[in-house]
Amino acid sequence: MNSGVAADRITLRELEISLARALKEITTTMFNCDSEIISAEKVEAVPPGLSAIVGFGGRISGYIAIHFPPKSACRLASSLLGMSFDEMDDIVADAMGEMVNMLAGGVKKFASCDEDLFKISVPSIVYGTDYYTRAPKNSERLLIGVQTEFGSFSVQLVFAAH
Amino acid sequence: MNSGVAADRITLRELEISLARALKEITTTMFNCDSEIISAEKVEAVPPGLSAIVGFGGRISGYIAIHFPPKSACRLASSLLGMSFDEMDDIVADAMGEMVNMLAGGVKKFASCDEDLFKISVPSIVYGTDYYTRAPKNSERLLIGVQTEFGSFSVQLVFAAH
Repeated sequence: MNSGVAADRITLRELEISLARALKEITTTMFNCDSEIISAEKVEAVPPGLSAIVGFGGRISGYIAIHFPPKSACRLASSLLGMSFDEMDDIVADAMGEMVNMLAGGVKKFASCDEDLFKISVPSIVYGTDYYTRAPKNSERLLIGVQTEFGSFSVQLVFAAH
Repeated sequence: MNSGVAADRITLRELEISLARALKEITTTMFNCDSEIISAEKVEAVPPGLSAIVGFGGRISGYIAIHFPPKSACRLASSLLGMSFDEMDDIVADAMGEMVNMLAGGVKKFASCDEDLFKISVPSIVYGTDYYTRAPKNSERLLIGVQTEFGSFSVQLVFAAH
């Protein structure tokens, strides 16, 4: 079965399927662990926490943001880098930036047919104890939760079709 | 004079020139005011404040972030929307998202030659009283300040050549 779809009719549902496949691939290859899609409401609210954001533009444009509670960001970075983190810092931020970058690449791979659906930006990372994130009011969006042995996080996909 | 340059040899300096031209155009057309490039150190540090971020990907990838002190974000949004804002909220956030979107479009216009240098993402906006923003450690970056009659803000351009 080929889940790739023509860009002129891609839907949020199709992106969601690609996102779930990419998440499964990344937790397996980057963290060597299983993952389960859960309700985003079951993930501890961020902030305080860390948000890793990667934009994309092309046939569709938007961004993918992963929102991590502090403990999840630290434990995932610890797993990835083989060193222990108790607090969010720039090293943890870079590791989570790499994770969202891989995730966006995975979504692109699973959602694109023959042609690139979009090009991916460099990730930006935000962390702190008091911040809000906001998507443009007219964009389509989805929000899912993910549970792993290293903690839970939520993944937001925002896009505007052209 | 054509400041467009071939993508395979674009430099941070050339992007900076395009950014300055785009900033001049946007302050004139969106806010009907003059603007002056100043040292980023002269801009009140953010946070507390609002950061509007738009990613881009293609021949080069990266992102542009505008970091606004709260008062500048409110005054610029007031000027744009013709209504008064005393505090940052989602309406102010959307207005500043539109501004960074226009800015990225302007940089693309001035920096691209015949071919699109990059595609632009949907903007993401962050605001709050305690947050850090972080660019990946291996990216090239520049940071400038901008002074307008509605307040000052800083503009960060981060990119990785492929």
